Amino acid sequence: MIQTASASVWHASLFGDDELASLFSGVAFLERFGAFEMALTRTLSEHGMIDADLAEKAMAAMRGFAPDADAMAAGMATDGVPVPAYVRQLRAVAGDAAPAIHVGATSQDLIDTATAMALRDASGVLAGRIEAVLSALGDLDTRFGTNMLTGRTRMQVALPMTAGDRLSAWSTPLSSGLDRLARVRDDAAQLQFGGPVGLGPETLGEAGPAVAGAMAAELGLRLPARSWHTDRSAFVAFGNWLSMVTGALGKIGQDVALMAQQGIDEIGLSSGGSSSAMPHKHNPVLAEKLVTLARFNAIQIGGLHQAQVHEQERSGGAWMLEWMILPPMVEAAGRALIDAEAMLRLVKGMGRPG
Amino acid sequence: MIQTASASVWHASLFGDDELASLFSGVAFLERFGAFEMALTRTLSEHGMIDADLAEKAMAAMRGFAPDADAMAAGMATDGVPVPAYVRQLRAVAGDAAPAIHVGATSQDLIDTATAMALRDASGVLAGRIEAVLSALGDLDTRFGTNMLTGRTRMQVALPMTAGDRLSAWSTPLSSGLDRLARVRDDAAQLQFGGPVGLGPETLGEAGPAVAGAMAAELGLRLPARSWHTDRSAFVAFGNWLSMVTGALGKIGQDVALMAQQGIDEIGLSSGGSSSAMPHKHNPVLAEKLVTLARFNAIQIGGLHQAQVHEQERSGGAWMLEWMILPPMVEAAGRALIDAEAMLRLVKGMGRPG
Amino acid sequence: MIQTASASVWHASLFGDDELASLFSGVAFLERFGAFEMALTRTLSEHGMIDADLAEKAMAAMRGFAPDADAMAAGMATDGVPVPAYVRQLRAVAGDAAPAIHVGATSQDLIDTATAMALRDASGVLAGRIEAVLSALGDLDTRFGTNMLTGRTRMQVALPMTAGDRLSAWSTPLSSGLDRLARVRDDAAQLQFGGPVGLGPETLGEAGPAVAGAMAAELGLRLPARSWHTDRSAFVAFGNWLSMVTGALGKIGQDVALMAQQGIDEIGLSSGGSSSAMPHKHNPVLAEKLVTLARFNAIQIGGLHQAQVHEQERSGGAWMLEWMILPPMVEAAGRALIDAEAMLRLVKGMGRPG
Amino acid sequence: MIQTASASVWHASLFGDDELASLFSGVAFLERFGAFEMALTRTLSEHGMIDADLAEKAMAAMRGFAPDADAMAAGMATDGVPVPAYVRQLRAVAGDAAPAIHVGATSQDLIDTATAMALRDASGVLAGRIEAVLSALGDLDTRFGTNMLTGRTRMQVALPMTAGDRLSAWSTPLSSGLDRLARVRDDAAQLQFGGPVGLGPETLGEAGPAVAGAMAAELGLRLPARSWHTDRSAFVAFGNWLSMVTGALGKIGQDVALMAQQGIDEIGLSSGGSSSAMPHKHNPVLAEKLVTLARFNAIQIGGLHQAQVHEQERSGGAWMLEWMILPPMVEAAGRALIDAEAMLRLVKGMGRPG
Repeated sequence: MIQTASASVWHASLFGDDELASLFSGVAFLERFGAFEMALTRTLSEHGMIDADLAEKAMAAMRGFAPDADAMAAGMATDGVPVPAYVRQLRAVAGDAAPAIHVGATSQDLIDTATAMALRDASGVLAGRIEAVLSALGDLDTRFGTNMLTGRTRMQVALPMTAGDRLSAWSTPLSSGLDRLARVRDDAAQLQFGGPVGLGPETLGEAGPAVAGAMAAELGLRLPARSWHTDRSAFVAFGNWLSMVTGALGKIGQDVALMAQQGIDEIGLSSGGSSSAMPHKHNPVLAEKLVTLARFNAIQIGGLHQAQVHEQERSGGAWMLEWMILPPMVEAAGRALIDAEAMLRLVKGMGRPG
Repeated sequence: MIQTASASVWHASLFGDDELASLFSGVAFLERFGAFEMALTRTLSEHGMIDADLAEKAMAAMRGFAPDADAMAAGMATDGVPVPAYVRQLRAVAGDAAPAIHVGATSQDLIDTATAMALRDASGVLAGRIEAVLSALGDLDTRFGTNMLTGRTRMQVALPMTAGDRLSAWSTPLSSGLDRLARVRDDAAQLQFGGPVGLGPETLGEAGPAVAGAMAAELGLRLPARSWHTDRSAFVAFGNWLSMVTGALGKIGQDVALMAQQGIDEIGLSSGGSSSAMPHKHNPVLAEKLVTLARFNAIQIGGLHQAQVHEQERSGGAWMLEWMILPPMVEAAGRALIDAEAMLRLVKGMGRPG
Repeated sequence: MIQTASASVWHASLFGDDELASLFSGVAFLERFGAFEMALTRTLSEHGMIDADLAEKAMAAMRGFAPDADAMAAGMATDGVPVPAYVRQLRAVAGDAAPAIHVGATSQDLIDTATAMALRDASGVLAGRIEAVLSALGDLDTRFGTNMLTGRTRMQVALPMTAGDRLSAWSTPLSSGLDRLARVRDDAAQLQFGGPVGLGPETLGEAGPAVAGAMAAELGLRLPARSWHTDRSAFVAFGNWLSMVTGALGKIGQDVALMAQQGIDEIGLSSGGSSSAMPHKHNPVLAEKLVTLARFNAIQIGGLHQAQVHEQERSGGAWMLEWMILPPMVEAAGRALIDAEAMLRLVKGMGRPG
Repeated sequence: MIQTASASVWHASLFGDDELASLFSGVAFLERFGAFEMALTRTLSEHGMIDADLAEKAMAAMRGFAPDADAMAAGMATDGVPVPAYVRQLRAVAGDAAPAIHVGATSQDLIDTATAMALRDASGVLAGRIEAVLSALGDLDTRFGTNMLTGRTRMQVALPMTAGDRLSAWSTPLSSGLDRLARVRDDAAQLQFGGPVGLGPETLGEAGPAVAGAMAAELGLRLPARSWHTDRSAFVAFGNWLSMVTGALGKIGQDVALMAQQGIDEIGLSSGGSSSAMPHKHNPVLAEKLVTLARFNAIQIGGLHQAQVHEQERSGGAWMLEWMILPPMVEAAGRALIDAEAMLRLVKGMGRPG
């Protein structure tokens, strides 16, 4: 599901990220719901916990299933989650095989698992883009690294340094961000299978944990020690990482905007935004936008932290807040990486020959 | 402009507000750009500041003008604002009347004015919805106001009171919210006409202020004492109001969710969300969502405050942050009002006969 | 009460504001508790609602009363509010006149009223400081207003303007801030007298409202239409104002730091912070701090908005969050005003003779 | 450094944490400044980079040095950092050995290193307190783990479960929090030795890195690959951890407050806060405060993220924002752990015998 910031074509062209937004689309979530339910039915059957023929019939029904969009939207509005409407439709097409579907699972299992898969997939995209930004920074270092630059602290001239020194300060948090990504990705890419009140696959009987393990393997996820219906640590940590990367890019954007000031003139960009009133202007729009996106994610991260305060076995209120906050953070980080690389590729000069 | 939170049909069905979102759509902004430019050209002509024939020709061109969507998106991505591409197209169709278009104006004049118009129009919608919520609260008071309720403080039983007492606590901040709305709406509904660096219509010459006054009147806006390119007070105050109303509704939602607990049983709702795992459940989804939306806007408001720190005569970074934050706040407040009324209309019992 | 950011002498010297902090000190709150209780006892007696002799005896006891600090701290830790320990001590010294004390009141009445008085008194201090900043801006306009300055938008050279033009952009939100202050001050400076579950003075009988009116008059506060135990609108609006003023000063600080850059050189400051490593440096510490304080309050404001979601007749959780957030916001705004005036008084040049 | 939230004795008794606050006191920072400077002088001497006799004389002066508090406060107000005044005094007492002091270092090196040491020391305290909370949870599990409890989702009755099931959900994020602490502590406990513009010990010559390595070892810190003047990742990650732990405790507090409601009655506490108006009440003050502290840190964390956007080689504005935000977050997390354990130790019953 869930939010993307692209209703207007203009807004999308400035802040949107189609590739990452698609990972959070309704279509993507429905596909992952299907993968979850099929993995569940298959694994239960393989462990002899449901009748094999019934399971096969249910699997066949699920394979060909295409949910009705209107029924999904109506269910979402009434139930506050898409899963009841989804499972109702699934069971209807499965006929007498319905009892082999959604056994021991609950709405949150499907939605959290689908979100975990989205973050896992987003991680790959984001890692690739960080590499691209680092590569662009490396190219600048090759071209301009030995040029001289005025080191400035607290907005005042401090000491001379090289362009390479500043490029190194820009790239360090991104390099370490790649290392950190591996950890938060592994944390977040975990199966959710807690059942109605989060007691986990154990409630299915002795073979429950094995079922969960097989499901996790099939879905390409980690099996956590316990269900995490009310423990949002992994998503908070992922969001924190998103905002750290966006913040590191915001620092680069801020520096570029400062360096591009006439009178400072320490960077040249081969193009920029035009003005409706002043044809002579070339605005460092991408640099400014990196600051915008950094501050945007620095705002949003607080929402994930507020959403930690779940009541009892599941808070609809806290959970929905996470839905509103997390996907736009992924998009903002992703777009900032795209914009950062684009901006760095526009640099035609940095510092002055020493 | 321009963000709305509705890329996914599910997300839209939960958090979206089509009526308010449409006020921030690209189409709505283009219409208001057209209104601004036509008011400007007409008024300049009426004040003898541009040639009347040229103005008439420019007006004719603008009347029939339909901007090219692809060109707009491309311009937005390059320029970071839609206005340069818009004005380029406008001038192209106006041919030799181009000099009669966009005289003395800058991108920010069009965008800020269009946003001010959006907030003015949103105010009417929001006021109507607050009235509807107050009416629903009044109906509950009529039906259940004299019923007894247990007053609770700090989550503990305090003293007996009536359902009407609590309904009064719910409605008071909404009533005062209506009063406050009149002020923030009047503040926000102001013309922006600062020109390239915010010096205002005075730069057009002696008649400049009269031109601006006539434009404001034509567009249904207030004429501010000075251009407000870097003074975002009115928008911050409007955002603050949005979050105050959403917070007042969040308090109602929190109370309803608490009252609906089995064991407390102080409110009955005639329907609720279903569960994929537990058919007996009726989840107070709307009540929870009011808490979600309150916390969402309480997060976002910080973004508007951060966006006050403009550099020099215009900060692209701060301004774009406002674009990302303000429209979703309007939608969240609007949806919360819709949901609050719907929830209150579902109430079939409150308190106990005394 | 309650929070001030000054445990360390260094921290206090950077961010503290003794004058405003003292309005939120324990001593100040105890004095206001005393004023509340004495106004209550006197007024009840005057309206014949308690025995006059008993009231006189209680008043005498209260006049000479000095609460025990340790008992207060212990009570605060146990009760989460200072009032029960305070009233226990008051009643103990009053002996058999104890029943004439705290009649119909509750902890929140004393604390909210004392906070309202603190905000009222802070408003006077803040208004005076805004005038001082406006005066300093006016002096700069007299000295340098006709000098030329390069207007910059999106960090790029736009058009020439005067120093006076920028000074005008700086002062406008402060001038309008003074107007806004009158409104939020009047809103916030209101008596709280709701009693245990917020039903208000009506629970004291027919003369209750007159009692409340007399108390409000004695305490120099407005009498609200209804108790506001769970309606925090007035405090949220005050906090919003604090952050708007701090934001307006942050914009000035940002500009000064940018203007003071070598290579831009559009402002001269007669002193600045020194560096431990580079004796030649003069850091625009006050300018930077204005940005810091603006961003600090822009963060905190979200806490007041979160604290709107009260449960039932009083949420200890939401209320305590307000205690943690609001006083530091007052101090940050107050210190920013002090620093802004100090910085503006250091300006020895701005722009270039035209 | 340096903020703690304890100006008022009442505030301190509610929200303060003396043990952790002392780690951020001016005294503690001065001690660490001394340790840094002595390690620097000694190591430079050992590597033959300064004259051994001069170094010895400087060390002797530093050993007996007690800075003048007034001079420190005055310097802080002027310079915006305590280090220039500190080093001036140090050099004055060292006489002709002054050149052996502060060689190659800058203010930020001392302050960041001292903060890193504070976080390292805080980590030990926090870890011990998490263990204590886990132990209290374990005791409850022993006493009540097999009792029955009503599992509730979205505030509605779901399925029966045991008290142990809920205790397990409470302890899981704290256990994983201990694991995460090891990582963020190791990240944060790093030497800062970047020199004036962050180029690092390499600027001291070939032996520079060895000097830094020896200093880090002497101070009990990690030697980072590069100076981190503008890369605040480690502090942001630490702040994120603080808010995650506080959030996990907020969830426990929220649950306890809900369980303690009359009508739900799933937990009994052996004491609670009293009311000034209603002697029968026992308010779950500690439970509520856990929610308050969770929301407080969820607000503050955004400030650390905003503070990532440093300009050039050092932003005074961003850096000072970190000083205002980080220490109160440590205190809030620490106090929440104290309160959580205290609250759990008050539990005299949970669930019902099955």
